[in-house]
Amino acid sequence: MSFFLFLDYAGVAVFAATGALAASRKRLDIVGFIFLAAITGIGGGTLRDVLLGKLPVFWIKHPTYIGICVLIAVLVFFTAHLVEYRYRLLLWLDAVGMSAYCVMGTIIGLEFGVSPYAAIVMGISTATFGGIFRDVISGEKSVLLSDEIYITAALLGAVSFTALVSIHIPESVAAIIAVVLAFSLRAAALLFGWTTPRYKPRKGREIE
Amino acid sequence: MSFFLFLDYAGVAVFAATGALAASRKRLDIVGFIFLAAITGIGGGTLRDVLLGKLPVFWIKHPTYIGICVLIAVLVFFTAHLVEYRYRLLLWLDAVGMSAYCVMGTIIGLEFGVSPYAAIVMGISTATFGGIFRDVISGEKSVLLSDEIYITAALLGAVSFTALVSIHIPESVAAIIAVVLAFSLRAAALLFGWTTPRYKPRKGREIE
Amino acid sequence: MSFFLFLDYAGVAVFAATGALAASRKRLDIVGFIFLAAITGIGGGTLRDVLLGKLPVFWIKHPTYIGICVLIAVLVFFTAHLVEYRYRLLLWLDAVGMSAYCVMGTIIGLEFGVSPYAAIVMGISTATFGGIFRDVISGEKSVLLSDEIYITAALLGAVSFTALVSIHIPESVAAIIAVVLAFSLRAAALLFGWTTPRYKPRKGREIE
Repeated sequence: MSFFLFLDYAGVAVFAATGALAASRKRLDIVGFIFLAAITGIGGGTLRDVLLGKLPVFWIKHPTYIGICVLIAVLVFFTAHLVEYRYRLLLWLDAVGMSAYCVMGTIIGLEFGVSPYAAIVMGISTATFGGIFRDVISGEKSVLLSDEIYITAALLGAVSFTALVSIHIPESVAAIIAVVLAFSLRAAALLFGWTTPRYKPRKGREIE
Repeated sequence: MSFFLFLDYAGVAVFAATGALAASRKRLDIVGFIFLAAITGIGGGTLRDVLLGKLPVFWIKHPTYIGICVLIAVLVFFTAHLVEYRYRLLLWLDAVGMSAYCVMGTIIGLEFGVSPYAAIVMGISTATFGGIFRDVISGEKSVLLSDEIYITAALLGAVSFTALVSIHIPESVAAIIAVVLAFSLRAAALLFGWTTPRYKPRKGREIE
Repeated sequence: MSFFLFLDYAGVAVFAATGALAASRKRLDIVGFIFLAAITGIGGGTLRDVLLGKLPVFWIKHPTYIGICVLIAVLVFFTAHLVEYRYRLLLWLDAVGMSAYCVMGTIIGLEFGVSPYAAIVMGISTATFGGIFRDVISGEKSVLLSDEIYITAALLGAVSFTALVSIHIPESVAAIIAVVLAFSLRAAALLFGWTTPRYKPRKGREIE
């Protein structure tokens, strides 16, 4: 299995796990677990393929992706009660998936021949929309609206990968560096509460 | 009119009615009724066509579908006050639409030449996403998160249809059986509160 | 720059500004501003391109659109505190964007060769879905569910443009008239609280 296929499957698997964990928080049944796991696992990549016009989308052509989501959902269904802090675990797995996907999405954009700018947007979309779909459908506050750094980490991964391949670093090396960079920034945000400067209304004024 | 076209129109009509009923609960105006009716009526099939790459989507090529949604929305606008339990009616119509669509979506997937697995996913997506769009846009709790069996019924319809045609039952017979199966399961859930085993955290532990 | 390109850029810019204003209300960081600005600015047009099958979507081919969203987001990030009534400003900018987009969406549908009915639906989708994505992702009540006229104004713009070009009024003249009509109706709704007749349950009955 190539490194990139591994990265792709890993991204699907961990995002699927976050969807299944969200299902466990809503106490859904096993089909609900599979449904949310699949939407989260393949949602970002599905959007990417649709925007590019790479249709039918990837998981129609390669059912392995759906298989991974089903497997992970069943696994989480029977083991999630062993986990003490399920939301915390969800956030960490989401961090892994986001890091893998911001790079995978950028790669697929570049391979498809779009401009580096568009490829970076592809990377960020792939990395974030699985989680957006999960949060919107399960009715939770979007992880994007959290205080800690999130989209900035996806941006860092996508930009650093694009920059590294543009100076002729081999793709797989660039990918590893970019995934590590994105994950490190998000991990620091989760561990130390790192935030970027927020918009703050001028003091002395009321916020409407 | 062929049986499948009838099934398709029926699915659009009843889903459109659920969208219009949701609009009545939000006290929208008649254009709002049409808007929500259309999103619900053609939303699932639109997603299916986009994922497959059957573009432009079906209702751009065949405006009849939009016409059905407009008609149903106007009808509901002037008659919804006659209905005593609108949310209950919404759930029953939704059950009919879901049953018709989980089979129609699977048929269209198979006809498009995708694998049986992908066709089943197409069927489930077609059956559920109209309702998801309706609930997300109108700001209601998604019917998917309800306690009673829902997605499982769509899965039953899609799987049983695929299984029946694979053993050479004629398509229309298989479709009728599968629609009846899916509807019966969902109806039992609505009538008797049937549920599938939920995820339950181990007893003695607090749920975070 | 042609009149239509100007209309298109203007629509993206004002919708992007509403997304950035929504980000300011959620106190996001600058990347969050850019993200919400981009989703709102290009969301409606993206949906339109996907439904038509004009893929890859427009902003992948023409990165200027993303550039406009980034620029506007940065601008709003540093100036939004100067605005006293940010939600009010959001509504007015949204009105401008909606008016520009209901006509632009219809034009692009007609140019693509779809029927006038489908083109009108394209126009309304383009005009409304940027705002729907903004509201759903930022967790705000959708502007579509507000009491004042909204979708009706988009419908007026799309229908009047289609009607005017069908009686051989030059496209640019028809576009200006239609934009002004749509904007005037929405402006009247914002200024005078104009509403269309709402669905009202028969009096003497309880609403479930």
